[in-house]
Amino acid sequence: MVDLVTETDKACEELIFNNLKQLYPTHKFIGEETTAAYGTTELTDEPTWIVDPLDGTTNFVHGFPFVCVSIGLTIGKTPTIGVVYNPIINELFTGIRGKGAFLNGNPIKVSSQTELISSLLATEAGTKRDQETVDASTNRIKSLLFKVRSLRMSGSCALNLCGIACGRLDVFFELGFGGPWDVAGGAVIVREAGGVVFDPSGADFDITSQRVAASNSFLKDALVDTLRQMV
Amino acid sequence: MVDLVTETDKACEELIFNNLKQLYPTHKFIGEETTAAYGTTELTDEPTWIVDPLDGTTNFVHGFPFVCVSIGLTIGKTPTIGVVYNPIINELFTGIRGKGAFLNGNPIKVSSQTELISSLLATEAGTKRDQETVDASTNRIKSLLFKVRSLRMSGSCALNLCGIACGRLDVFFELGFGGPWDVAGGAVIVREAGGVVFDPSGADFDITSQRVAASNSFLKDALVDTLRQMV
Repeated sequence: MVDLVTETDKACEELIFNNLKQLYPTHKFIGEETTAAYGTTELTDEPTWIVDPLDGTTNFVHGFPFVCVSIGLTIGKTPTIGVVYNPIINELFTGIRGKGAFLNGNPIKVSSQTELISSLLATEAGTKRDQETVDASTNRIKSLLFKVRSLRMSGSCALNLCGIACGRLDVFFELGFGGPWDVAGGAVIVREAGGVVFDPSGADFDITSQRVAASNSFLKDALVDTLRQMV
Repeated sequence: MVDLVTETDKACEELIFNNLKQLYPTHKFIGEETTAAYGTTELTDEPTWIVDPLDGTTNFVHGFPFVCVSIGLTIGKTPTIGVVYNPIINELFTGIRGKGAFLNGNPIKVSSQTELISSLLATEAGTKRDQETVDASTNRIKSLLFKVRSLRMSGSCALNLCGIACGRLDVFFELGFGGPWDVAGGAVIVREAGGVVFDPSGADFDITSQRVAASNSFLKDALVDTLRQMV
């Protein structure tokens, strides 16, 4: 495992939690750093704020400009509010269930691409470096390169979801990322932008499964068909 | 081959060429679009402006924010002036041989990383989709994932070179990109930032070979050793 947790991460998470707790003292909280320190926190049906103070930690350490703060609120385990902010290029993605998705206040929507072969795909190499994981992920890449226009790896799961939401990316999937904090904010932003969030197998999205795929509604079946033999 | 040449590309190239020709009527010119239209233009020892009006064409079409204009001047085939501008996030990289490298006017330098295993690697899936090319590139990725911290694919060769120059990326290589216009601007920027530009085999960089690697001086040997069995 590649691990680059910093003290700054923890301080940011505490700052966000402390502010939210003052506003919503009865709500639950799940954060990447808290979970890393105290073990898994179970997601319940209670209103729960799920926070990644720094998604794209490797990028942050290296200065690569795909880093963000991701804040999500689930109610009944359903992503309901999402806020994803990239301070490097000053892009604020927001979404509220039933109220739309926005980039810096302007409405966004997913791409209108209908052909997988013309699609820009995002995925990630992840942080696990055992032979089985690396073989599986590179074999997926090999197969997918024949099915899409090109491949991007930016190093931030939350920003990949926002890329789908604003139509910069057409299809995205990732397996084995850190936890629900990587997807809680982005999931509602994708859906409010007219997109779909689902398990890479085609099953319903489970925010706790560390598996995610997203696209517009046209491309979902083609992506799932392509991934089905592999995941 | 994936091909997304646009009329805008050609118009931009003509605009750049026409301005430079007025200033330097005796200089030679090589451009991506001109070459695509009229066949290969041989690089001579004469002062030659090598222009890619839009590097990251796929990104541009999709709205993914890694696109740039790349302008390079070679004298005696040596990259001497480099200008790479990303208008989406307003980053202007410049370098003049012997005069340093700059990002928006501020001096930049390559990373101080000394360990390949802690390095952020950039490479690209490219546009060729024959089985041999895809097998080779995914096999390289598979091997490299065990040797570096993580992998980024941004879709712009020129911006990958600039990422090396300003230390956001530690190592970069690409095989089979479009032509000298992808590297003519970035090469001098990397060198003036204290980095090295070389053939992925470890041999001297040949601007016409469609093969490039770049890093700081500490990481070159480790990258070459890792790639040697493969390229």
